[in-house]
Amino acid sequence: MARTTARRPAVLGIDFGTSSVRALIVDPRDGQPLGSAVAAYTRGDAGVFTSGSDPHLARQHPADYVEGVAEAVRAAQEHARSDPGFDPEAIAGIGVDATGSTPIPVDRENVPLALRPEFAGNVDAMAWLWKDHTSHAEAAEITRLAREEGRPYLAKCGGTYSSEWYWAKILRCERANPRVARAAHAWVEFCDWMPAWLCGVRDPAAIRRGACAAGHKGMYHASWGGLPAADFLDALSPGLSRFRATYATPVLASDQPAGRLAPAAAEQLGLRPGVPVAVGALDAHCGAVGSGCAPGTLVKIIGTSTCDCIVVPLSQPLADIPGVCGIAAESILPGHHGIEAGQSAVGDIFNWFVSRVLGHGSAAAAAAAHARLTAEAERLAPGESGLLTLDWHNGNRTVLVDPLLTGLTLGLTLATTPAELYRSLIEGTAFGARMITERLAEYGVPIQRIVCCGGVAEKSPLLMQVYADVLNRPMFVAGSDQACALGAAVFAAVVGGAHASVPEAQQRMTSTRPRAYQPEAASVRTYERLLALYRSLHDAFGAAARAEPLGGVMKVLLDIQAAAKRTAAPAGRA
Amino acid sequence: MARTTARRPAVLGIDFGTSSVRALIVDPRDGQPLGSAVAAYTRGDAGVFTSGSDPHLARQHPADYVEGVAEAVRAAQEHARSDPGFDPEAIAGIGVDATGSTPIPVDRENVPLALRPEFAGNVDAMAWLWKDHTSHAEAAEITRLAREEGRPYLAKCGGTYSSEWYWAKILRCERANPRVARAAHAWVEFCDWMPAWLCGVRDPAAIRRGACAAGHKGMYHASWGGLPAADFLDALSPGLSRFRATYATPVLASDQPAGRLAPAAAEQLGLRPGVPVAVGALDAHCGAVGSGCAPGTLVKIIGTSTCDCIVVPLSQPLADIPGVCGIAAESILPGHHGIEAGQSAVGDIFNWFVSRVLGHGSAAAAAAAHARLTAEAERLAPGESGLLTLDWHNGNRTVLVDPLLTGLTLGLTLATTPAELYRSLIEGTAFGARMITERLAEYGVPIQRIVCCGGVAEKSPLLMQVYADVLNRPMFVAGSDQACALGAAVFAAVVGGAHASVPEAQQRMTSTRPRAYQPEAASVRTYERLLALYRSLHDAFGAAARAEPLGGVMKVLLDIQAAAKRTAAPAGRA
Repeated sequence: MARTTARRPAVLGIDFGTSSVRALIVDPRDGQPLGSAVAAYTRGDAGVFTSGSDPHLARQHPADYVEGVAEAVRAAQEHARSDPGFDPEAIAGIGVDATGSTPIPVDRENVPLALRPEFAGNVDAMAWLWKDHTSHAEAAEITRLAREEGRPYLAKCGGTYSSEWYWAKILRCERANPRVARAAHAWVEFCDWMPAWLCGVRDPAAIRRGACAAGHKGMYHASWGGLPAADFLDALSPGLSRFRATYATPVLASDQPAGRLAPAAAEQLGLRPGVPVAVGALDAHCGAVGSGCAPGTLVKIIGTSTCDCIVVPLSQPLADIPGVCGIAAESILPGHHGIEAGQSAVGDIFNWFVSRVLGHGSAAAAAAAHARLTAEAERLAPGESGLLTLDWHNGNRTVLVDPLLTGLTLGLTLATTPAELYRSLIEGTAFGARMITERLAEYGVPIQRIVCCGGVAEKSPLLMQVYADVLNRPMFVAGSDQACALGAAVFAAVVGGAHASVPEAQQRMTSTRPRAYQPEAASVRTYERLLALYRSLHDAFGAAARAEPLGGVMKVLLDIQAAAKRTAAPAGRA
Repeated sequence: MARTTARRPAVLGIDFGTSSVRALIVDPRDGQPLGSAVAAYTRGDAGVFTSGSDPHLARQHPADYVEGVAEAVRAAQEHARSDPGFDPEAIAGIGVDATGSTPIPVDRENVPLALRPEFAGNVDAMAWLWKDHTSHAEAAEITRLAREEGRPYLAKCGGTYSSEWYWAKILRCERANPRVARAAHAWVEFCDWMPAWLCGVRDPAAIRRGACAAGHKGMYHASWGGLPAADFLDALSPGLSRFRATYATPVLASDQPAGRLAPAAAEQLGLRPGVPVAVGALDAHCGAVGSGCAPGTLVKIIGTSTCDCIVVPLSQPLADIPGVCGIAAESILPGHHGIEAGQSAVGDIFNWFVSRVLGHGSAAAAAAAHARLTAEAERLAPGESGLLTLDWHNGNRTVLVDPLLTGLTLGLTLATTPAELYRSLIEGTAFGARMITERLAEYGVPIQRIVCCGGVAEKSPLLMQVYADVLNRPMFVAGSDQACALGAAVFAAVVGGAHASVPEAQQRMTSTRPRAYQPEAASVRTYERLLALYRSLHDAFGAAARAEPLGGVMKVLLDIQAAAKRTAAPAGRA
């Protein structure tokens, strides 16, 4: 009987996160996992190079990517061998997603500068990780110039360019490290570079770039002719437009092949050469795809921060949506506008409270504290704490697009407990989430269904129930706890010919858990009252104009803080 | 030589606090302590009876007062015997202060009902401790009726009658426990009852009542003929005016004798009968007197909450000061308007943060945490935390007179530390203190000097320096760490004939520590900037009208909380 076991079709999704890379082999007929494995990056601190003197710096060594992908893909195949129907030769396609915007400076041969001996140990020659904020001033400069010159480039990113994005990072390198800047022949997004490396592409200008990272992060949009104009880039820094010249356009959706697996990479990964590799995508967008993102289906990826993704067919008109941080053609699904919103901190806020405020330093102590606070907070009724929180502890990405807003909790009394504070922080993020769905609805983006994925969505029934009650909608949870890798596998299935289109592949390969969190009528009513108060605070403190009575409070406080920090040292404080 | 030791003159101050009574024997020529002792109350929880079902309840058993005073006075004499010049017979006068408003229901013989067998264990027959808030609704009713009928009675207490005060508590007892109410022949303030007991006064109507507790707490003011009119009291509850009939007027300043020590009490205390006993006063006011309160000298008693006292000669006109909770003739010093303001929580806020939020349960752990947070907070420059706090965790007594305001902290980021929060809480109370001095100055009350006493003032150089910087004034600390008992001793010295007047006695007996906390110019500048922000928040959230954009936020939050608590149980929550 064993001889007759049918060979199972298979596709491979590879998901590069911040600390590790995951390989997932699935059956494209039903999305069932055949094998998966994770390889941790080995360099820096859990894969990230930081600087004691500059808290904004976050870099990664590309060697971690190359070594990690080989280890993870080989291990996933080992894992899959427990299924008698698995045959590595059957892997029909490969999809790749990665963090971003994480641009990598490369030479003429597409070799990351960090891999060249003369740049060994130079963090500016490494990959500039998404959460690197060293280019804060440069981002502001880009925003300013685009506004001054009336350029349309900010229309798709909510009106403000971010220090986390491609051109800000490149401009920062031009200013801060001319030697690296001169040696860079191109800057390639991590999610574009990895497929090119897998396919043995030796000329950066020949890399098939993805629409996903290009849209808004790369300031790419067809309506203004693709990338920003050369004269705009050169006005930022003379010669900056040379990186436009080595950036192939038009960019492509991830249902298109980036190429075929080259023999060298195939050998390292233990796969057969020639397997089609999809154009790369950002991890969050692949998470959305792997969670069933479609017109009318909003996917919320809830982790340390959130990324909210939804799509609208390109055939339908779509206005610019103020305060929504990214709208880009085909960035999520081919044939659709991809809309990306997000909250700059969610799980990070709860972790701050537990680890930093309450001082539960070790991972085990923090996990126990989260569990205890959650159990206590679950016993509280909505509104019972008397607290209200503005969830701006890391600024506000959507809809205020203001990284300099700060968190607020009010309603404090001498009886306020840690569990009440904890629940209030959760509720604050739920109200923040509600502002996003309201803004989308206001601009005509229909939302019929919300599917959540990510660590917090999977681990916190309390948070999910609060979200259901605050958003007054059922909250579904994605069927896969490896949604990003599964999304990459969806693209793998399309470029590998297992499915004709992404929606067809999603239909077969993605799912939601059977039970959704349902809004409870009494809680919904209470939260509607609290929402009105949240909105008052949101509008008062989030007001763009400092002239508003309270609109300036948080900013002036930051001015005062900056001045205090500048003078603290010279004043000879102990 | 020993035979020639001169007998030292002596006076006795007795200070009844919330958990214990302190006796202090001093030399009236210089205020030097000859002996002191503290006796803890033994009933209830550290002297306080509370109720699990009603967090507002706080009562004390009068037996604790009677037993405690005997123990403390005898022990203080024992202590004083180490001075060869001490002779108990030399004690020339006795002064008494006590917490308040703490009214005690008594029978026709001036026996507290709690001491009668039929009321044993009945908390309503005990002393209603100052911090008992069970009469919240009754206080609101008194405020409402006074306003509706255009009565002047609220003019001296900031426009709102408090649940902590005399008539509210009596009215509550009328409603809640008719049996106790019927048995009560009079309600006597603790600070009036104790001198009467010492002097053996058997008829409540013969008790010489003090101006100190009568003013504003008892709604007493000469301008409207003393106590509130009988028809007003009867409109609140038919027959309530009977307690007006057993309340002797006019009330007296504490430089007047309440009587002479009766033989029975003298025997219990180990003193000679016939010693003059001063009219009693409230503990905070005696603390002010013992710290040198005088025209131009504001005394801040900083502990779990603050009481701020200053006086203006009766010969000078003094307008009603909106939001200042008590103005009463001779309540602090004879011949002067006594002005009392205060913050409803100061040390309580820091204790809440350390014990409740950070969870340092034991006294030792809490003390260590306070020390560690203080050390870290001291290393921060003003403004460096980026935080701003509204110190309304227990409402706002002065200048907003609103117990339903709540605390707020903003400027929170993922990097915010416990020490930064701790310092921000201290700064918040300092800004609150500044609002008080500004309001006094605005209404023409000159402040030349600020003297602080109380546990927090003595123990926290960090807080004192922050106050000096925020108030932009030197902050003096009282020379005695037993300022309340010393103030009682000042009155003892006057009724005992050692000094001709209170100012003369203060001149000799009170002092400040040599070194004052001086404002530092750079810190003052930073705090002026922060103060402007505090004022914005204060005015926005403290606005009386709910119609103001943010004026209603804290109140609506409390409405929602109350509704949540009402429905939490019926909804069958686990």
